[in-house]
Amino acid sequence: MKIVLAQLNYHIGNFESNTSKIIDTIHRSAQEGADLVVFAELAIGGYPAQDFLEFDDFLDRCEDALRQIASNCQNIACIVGTPIRNNQPKGKPLFNAAAFCYQNQIQYFRKSLLPNYDVFDEYRYFEPSKSFNLLHFKGHKIALTICEDIWDVGNNRLYTINPMEELIVQHPDLMINIAASPFNYNQAQTRLKVLRANVLKYKIPLIYVNQTGAQTELLFDGGSLIFHANGNVKQSLSFFKEEAVMVETDDLLKNGPDKDIQEIPDKIALIHDALVMGIGDYFRKMGFSKAILGLSGGIDSAVTLALATKALGPENVHSLLLPSQFSSDHSITDAVSLVNNLGSTAETIAIEPLFEAFMSQLKPGLKGKPFDVTEENIQARIRGVLLMAISNKFGYILLNTSNKSESAVGYGTLYGDMNGGLSVLGDVYKTGVYELAHYINREKIIIPVNTILKPPSAELRPNQKDSDSLPDYDVLDEILTQYIEFRKGPEELISAGYDKDVVKKVLRLVNLNEYKRKQTPPILRISPKAFGMGRRMPIVGKYLL
Amino acid sequence: MKIVLAQLNYHIGNFESNTSKIIDTIHRSAQEGADLVVFAELAIGGYPAQDFLEFDDFLDRCEDALRQIASNCQNIACIVGTPIRNNQPKGKPLFNAAAFCYQNQIQYFRKSLLPNYDVFDEYRYFEPSKSFNLLHFKGHKIALTICEDIWDVGNNRLYTINPMEELIVQHPDLMINIAASPFNYNQAQTRLKVLRANVLKYKIPLIYVNQTGAQTELLFDGGSLIFHANGNVKQSLSFFKEEAVMVETDDLLKNGPDKDIQEIPDKIALIHDALVMGIGDYFRKMGFSKAILGLSGGIDSAVTLALATKALGPENVHSLLLPSQFSSDHSITDAVSLVNNLGSTAETIAIEPLFEAFMSQLKPGLKGKPFDVTEENIQARIRGVLLMAISNKFGYILLNTSNKSESAVGYGTLYGDMNGGLSVLGDVYKTGVYELAHYINREKIIIPVNTILKPPSAELRPNQKDSDSLPDYDVLDEILTQYIEFRKGPEELISAGYDKDVVKKVLRLVNLNEYKRKQTPPILRISPKAFGMGRRMPIVGKYLL
Repeated sequence: MKIVLAQLNYHIGNFESNTSKIIDTIHRSAQEGADLVVFAELAIGGYPAQDFLEFDDFLDRCEDALRQIASNCQNIACIVGTPIRNNQPKGKPLFNAAAFCYQNQIQYFRKSLLPNYDVFDEYRYFEPSKSFNLLHFKGHKIALTICEDIWDVGNNRLYTINPMEELIVQHPDLMINIAASPFNYNQAQTRLKVLRANVLKYKIPLIYVNQTGAQTELLFDGGSLIFHANGNVKQSLSFFKEEAVMVETDDLLKNGPDKDIQEIPDKIALIHDALVMGIGDYFRKMGFSKAILGLSGGIDSAVTLALATKALGPENVHSLLLPSQFSSDHSITDAVSLVNNLGSTAETIAIEPLFEAFMSQLKPGLKGKPFDVTEENIQARIRGVLLMAISNKFGYILLNTSNKSESAVGYGTLYGDMNGGLSVLGDVYKTGVYELAHYINREKIIIPVNTILKPPSAELRPNQKDSDSLPDYDVLDEILTQYIEFRKGPEELISAGYDKDVVKKVLRLVNLNEYKRKQTPPILRISPKAFGMGRRMPIVGKYLL
Repeated sequence: MKIVLAQLNYHIGNFESNTSKIIDTIHRSAQEGADLVVFAELAIGGYPAQDFLEFDDFLDRCEDALRQIASNCQNIACIVGTPIRNNQPKGKPLFNAAAFCYQNQIQYFRKSLLPNYDVFDEYRYFEPSKSFNLLHFKGHKIALTICEDIWDVGNNRLYTINPMEELIVQHPDLMINIAASPFNYNQAQTRLKVLRANVLKYKIPLIYVNQTGAQTELLFDGGSLIFHANGNVKQSLSFFKEEAVMVETDDLLKNGPDKDIQEIPDKIALIHDALVMGIGDYFRKMGFSKAILGLSGGIDSAVTLALATKALGPENVHSLLLPSQFSSDHSITDAVSLVNNLGSTAETIAIEPLFEAFMSQLKPGLKGKPFDVTEENIQARIRGVLLMAISNKFGYILLNTSNKSESAVGYGTLYGDMNGGLSVLGDVYKTGVYELAHYINREKIIIPVNTILKPPSAELRPNQKDSDSLPDYDVLDEILTQYIEFRKGPEELISAGYDKDVVKKVLRLVNLNEYKRKQTPPILRISPKAFGMGRRMPIVGKYLL
């Protein structure tokens, strides 16, 4: 039996595009002699469709699309993910299902293990399935599961049922798993380990089809996999790209050579490619092609610009240089070198006259109080107004250039440099931004050396340095990682050797600034714990303050 | 047996305040001869503590607090809600528990039905309990449940287990339910109905203890209830206020007089009081006392100011009047009358010079393109910068004045009039804002009649009216309610008689503007479906666009 793994990029709610992409793939696969095409989890309506799943109209459209797809499955079968209604009187109103379509019949297989942590809210919509049946097709007995269903290989405390344990006693000869498994920099390794553990445990081949593409903050990396029964990887599909690959099951049932393991790029290369895909897909799916950003001569905006030109083309990314009276000379020269290196465009608008105008209009209101963060914020907000003006007039999307370290401790101005339609680096700590800069420069200097070498500064008052008010980024990023990614509390951090006062200050700043992060743009998620939908914190909380 | 219902206002993560408030109430109740004090669901750490629940340190502090509380329960017992660890090898790591503390013993009762819809994410943290035992105390057998546990009276499709059915066979003589049940304008009616149905079904008295107070967007209205065994209300506690009430169980076991039903204020009075509490509590819990807002002479900012002065005192609410060249004369005169009526303060800063300064600096950048939404946004953003400047300099929190109709269709400027630390009216449609204005004026004119009568306008271009680009608010709000609150799709709305083009335009605008709402301040939730944590929509979706 010939099976095509269709690793595609879907668009939430875009039934026309998703359906025609699926049907095209079915037709092309049929022409190439395939018996079965496998699409990803919830491919039809897109994943995560979130509360669209509460609309009857949305579910009706999913059903229509599925019927249309099924009507194209006469001489070829397909497996495609879709939400279906739960017709039982009790339980959540939907199931997360894999529909098997063949010769005017549709057979459903329902997801049992529903992730409901971090970015996942599946129990908000779906009822977990408690029935387990094999799919019989062309002499094969297939254990067909959905994503998390095979994520319990004996050590997952969350689940009391293990779908594969229920299915294996029915003697399948092949596992197929369809997934919507979002990227983080550990995920490819974890996924390979978990999938392989399933193969080694159940001793039958596994075909794993993930989706690719970005859905706002969630980045799907593809990397679909085909395993021989002995646990060797027969073939792995690309990361961050659409791809369709055909495999003959006879070749899988034989044990494969003892060579293969999936080639996973380095962490920083994965992050780079994930961010580039994330930018590109956000613009395409929002129906925009052009980006704008504020270029300061610093490392964050430089890396953001490099990534954006990679994603959208240098002709589609416009930079504004917005110097103030506190900007150093190199802030302009470094920015200009970068723009030249990338072949993109830029223009300069001085903010000093606007700052003076605000100071003049605000003179009575500010009552002669001394220069403080107020005046720093005014500068950042003037830049925000200018960037949004050009963005509005010419239909650009503003890219936010804040990094995760800044966002964590609230080192940024709401309605100023925290503006943007999309945050590119909001899940990358400052130390990671430097790593990205070196990666971008791996073949030739794109980001000016001075941008990498000079000490970070917001340049909002004379001779300001980030290190005036923050711990060194090396230390800061370690503490932040321990607190945010690993949920370590103050006592644990202090006993691990971090300075008590620094720990208390950093944790306090993180918690104090939830109100700011509530209003930030969506952040491309590259870590196991990003600010955004996967990290939900109270604003009025008084924990560690 | 004498039981005190302690309807208190907790603060998430503020262990010191919550614990001392609980212990004080225990001491006072003991002095008054009570046998048992009942506190609300998850009182110790606050509700919803969200992902703080993933921190061992946070859970340790909950345990410490509980031990401290328990050590004060020698001659009196208490029931208090707290998260506890799940020591079983399988399942979510926590239970949502009611701790019964008495004479150095702590006995736990675990929640079984975990809401995981709208604003609720309990399945993210908690394992549902499958064991059901009565609490035995002073000769009473008490069916002790937590909030949602008694929310299934035969017709709730979500749950397959009904805790009270499991408990009633053990012959309890009293039900106690501790809750964290957030307000919406239907909730008091619904709650009364559901609680009463339990009493009528199980024929024993019910003591129901809710919390009060605001946790950012979630408003807890209190309204705790005591029922006789025949379903009559013996006593109901205040809405939106802390209160402790003692009841003698002997009086409950007798059937009460056939008079009582809870007195629930009118919908608009409830909304008014909820918003006032929401503002006051946000400021208090954030550690601020003073608010600022932009006063336009229009109805939204007028109602926001009236609510804020009620919550914080007129001396703590400062208004900026920020007229432009497009502002009508009455925009100033109406605003000034309002400020005078309320006895609060205001100052005026003209934005025209700043607008001119921006136009001048942007002249090359805008390339002579005609006046459009860009210039409208610049005005709104200049106001945003001015408001934030005064706010930063003097430590005010900026109140956002947008209403739900505007927010729904994206009629507002990001980083301009959409700014603020808290959105007061973001869950009130424009038609509801008028109702609030009439309610505020019920005894004397506070909001100037002209503010109520004049046609709504953003005043960002000459002679602009909201009705130039939006349907009349009567129609708009109906369509929005059907789409947002009741999840009706386009076909359902059109067949209900709404104009096809209007329906398509409105639904398109709502979905198109998810990116804006992603960045709005937290919104005080007064409806069953507010923008914010209870409504989760994809940004890159292409549904109904």
